[in-house]
Amino acid sequence: MTTLKGKDILRADQLTLDEIELIMQTAARFESVMRAGGRLTNMSGKVLATLFYEPSTRTRLSFESAMLRLGGQVISVAEARTSSSAAKGETLFDTGKMIESYADVAVIRHPAIGSAQELADGASIPVINGGDGAGQHPTQALLDLYTIRKEKGTVEGLTVTLAGDLKNGRTVHSLSALLANFGVRFYFVAPAALAMPTEITAGLRQRRVEIVETSDLAEAAAQSDVLYVTRVQRERFTDPAEYERLKGSYVVDLALVKAAKPGITLMHPLPRVDEIVKELDAYDGAAYFRQAANGVQVRMALLALVTGQA
Amino acid sequence: MTTLKGKDILRADQLTLDEIELIMQTAARFESVMRAGGRLTNMSGKVLATLFYEPSTRTRLSFESAMLRLGGQVISVAEARTSSSAAKGETLFDTGKMIESYADVAVIRHPAIGSAQELADGASIPVINGGDGAGQHPTQALLDLYTIRKEKGTVEGLTVTLAGDLKNGRTVHSLSALLANFGVRFYFVAPAALAMPTEITAGLRQRRVEIVETSDLAEAAAQSDVLYVTRVQRERFTDPAEYERLKGSYVVDLALVKAAKPGITLMHPLPRVDEIVKELDAYDGAAYFRQAANGVQVRMALLALVTGQA
Amino acid sequence: MTTLKGKDILRADQLTLDEIELIMQTAARFESVMRAGGRLTNMSGKVLATLFYEPSTRTRLSFESAMLRLGGQVISVAEARTSSSAAKGETLFDTGKMIESYADVAVIRHPAIGSAQELADGASIPVINGGDGAGQHPTQALLDLYTIRKEKGTVEGLTVTLAGDLKNGRTVHSLSALLANFGVRFYFVAPAALAMPTEITAGLRQRRVEIVETSDLAEAAAQSDVLYVTRVQRERFTDPAEYERLKGSYVVDLALVKAAKPGITLMHPLPRVDEIVKELDAYDGAAYFRQAANGVQVRMALLALVTGQA
Repeated sequence: MTTLKGKDILRADQLTLDEIELIMQTAARFESVMRAGGRLTNMSGKVLATLFYEPSTRTRLSFESAMLRLGGQVISVAEARTSSSAAKGETLFDTGKMIESYADVAVIRHPAIGSAQELADGASIPVINGGDGAGQHPTQALLDLYTIRKEKGTVEGLTVTLAGDLKNGRTVHSLSALLANFGVRFYFVAPAALAMPTEITAGLRQRRVEIVETSDLAEAAAQSDVLYVTRVQRERFTDPAEYERLKGSYVVDLALVKAAKPGITLMHPLPRVDEIVKELDAYDGAAYFRQAANGVQVRMALLALVTGQA
Repeated sequence: MTTLKGKDILRADQLTLDEIELIMQTAARFESVMRAGGRLTNMSGKVLATLFYEPSTRTRLSFESAMLRLGGQVISVAEARTSSSAAKGETLFDTGKMIESYADVAVIRHPAIGSAQELADGASIPVINGGDGAGQHPTQALLDLYTIRKEKGTVEGLTVTLAGDLKNGRTVHSLSALLANFGVRFYFVAPAALAMPTEITAGLRQRRVEIVETSDLAEAAAQSDVLYVTRVQRERFTDPAEYERLKGSYVVDLALVKAAKPGITLMHPLPRVDEIVKELDAYDGAAYFRQAANGVQVRMALLALVTGQA
Repeated sequence: MTTLKGKDILRADQLTLDEIELIMQTAARFESVMRAGGRLTNMSGKVLATLFYEPSTRTRLSFESAMLRLGGQVISVAEARTSSSAAKGETLFDTGKMIESYADVAVIRHPAIGSAQELADGASIPVINGGDGAGQHPTQALLDLYTIRKEKGTVEGLTVTLAGDLKNGRTVHSLSALLANFGVRFYFVAPAALAMPTEITAGLRQRRVEIVETSDLAEAAAQSDVLYVTRVQRERFTDPAEYERLKGSYVVDLALVKAAKPGITLMHPLPRVDEIVKELDAYDGAAYFRQAANGVQVRMALLALVTGQA
């Protein structure tokens, strides 16, 4: 039987199809209990530790809300980089040894690739990667997958455009790996300086995934069932002028949606700045706020599954 | 029937007399249960989000304690300005859309006037204003009202002195609006540079509220049932020299209380620096620590009422 | 009957032998319930406030985990120095008056000696000192004592080496006072600039405690049942060059352990930087991670005892 009990969730591409299905179904089950006004107590008596070495309100709060809605409790280091053992020079391995005594499961967000793995190496409790620099962000990819299934009924055979900063966006790295399991066709839309890394496109093509790389957002949108836009993140640029030049390149507005494939679903990991105009919030296919909300049940599923409480 | 279910609490002057009475009675009911050693579970299964874009230990902790004492749970961003989506450029409207998925009710503290309204515009859950810059601080005003009723038995017909920084002190802005409902006479005591804004005094006089503006604290205290002192807040001054010159202007000491109306009640929103000398802590009428304690039951009442759990 | 109900825990040397025994036995009782998979609800309905004016991930999280594992709840100021009433000039006495309304027990960590006492003077609820600058850290000393008992069976008659920064290390100040109750012999191993303060060695010798002061770690280890190493803390130095020169002086490695008394127990309050090499983690006598874990049950015992819930 498929189980995630005791496992770390570090990369989107570590998950088998059965494991992904288990996560999706567990999330759907939790969602339906909550919609019916029911109370969940799966994590009663358990403690989650959230260790955030990089600010991320949305990811941290959605994990904490998920834990509380399962009847569990939370301890948190919201400013781990400055205020913690890290400042005294402790390794993440030792931090892992520490946290296993204080919690039953841990989520880490850290600016360095591989950091979640290092914490997991030290900790005997399950560790979930809440984003490690330009590396992976598997729980975001899972909630994105969950959202596409809910919005479209299925993921199989869809055409999905990933647009924006594809170079630095760990979200799209994890998501493309995950969607590749389901026969998805991709448009990758980015300025040349922010293109999807070639090791990722090469890896996908090796898995026989169809990819079109273009800088023409309108062309891609006309062919796509889903348009997934990411923020061009100021904090990833060293040159402010380059940031200013590129950030406005791919703004999604009413005209773009009118010219796009009818019923196109708009997604965004949030926070948005001005990548999607506010006027589109009223559009039926604007799924980005529902997407954020889905983060709670998907993270509930992950917390319950890795601790064997689902 | 009067209800606050589903409502935002953004301004003191939005509340009807019936709504104020409901809040006072609910707070008194919760207080009596707690005094009798009882346990409250009104907010069991519910989550409060506290979003503090400006530090305020007292307001945040009293809301969080209120939620926990009602059997609820809390997620928190204590340093929202630097560590959150805000740094990435997210609007408060979008933050409201986010937080409605993670919590059942939210409290926001923010340096900008109107910020609580903007969050409430985005969020479908009730939003409580925990202070928006020099704007409003309605929950402080409500706990102040609750305190005066407890200390004096009634508010009707009392003479109340508001002293200190009346220009920048949102507390006294919200409080004067609230007390105006109850036939209170005011002394406003402040140096000219920190006087109560004319739009507030004009608004009160239009409501036929009797106001005496003076810079003579002793004269006002001699006539007053309640002396409400506010801190001259360093962080509201751009010129440190002006701060140093003014901060000591209105110190409440033993001599002042001896010359004041017998039984005068001393209040202060806290933290105090040296506006009220420590020797007065032992004075029976020194209500400022009891006032802070009252914040818990008043905020319990607000949390339970707006979520329909009272 | 011995009781700690309503008492503050401010210094290791305030505790009687009976009180120490009560803490040890309560911690052992909680530990055995948890090991058997049982749930504790001693602190159900109670709130702990953690006030950290100085970062200390390990101490804060272990207290918070302890409270949650007892069924209680937590409110927290993780960055109290910058983000709290403190920045507005509030005294710790007044902060104590505040916190007694919001919580049933408080833990404070503060860079100034005597700070925990000042908070306790203001607060009617029990206050636990989580470390006050170069002063005391009694709960660390108690968990160290608990660890030695668990590792060695008894403390009576052991030889214990305290090594590293003995001048600034509040941990070793509290611990030496506590162990002195049990007929322990000491080696104090430190460079001259970081030697144990003479008032502490004088106090111990007055109590007829046997002390050897040396800079030869190997010699001490050869005679010792327990080797307790502390970090040479960068943040205690004003001259970085002096820090660099001294920090490596007392590194514990495989060679040192091989030459030490067989079965020697290695302890460290953590975080470690490079005082104990990672290769020693696999050594049976490496107790430092178990020591950190013991912090939870010892702090559970303290929280439950001072609130009368044990």
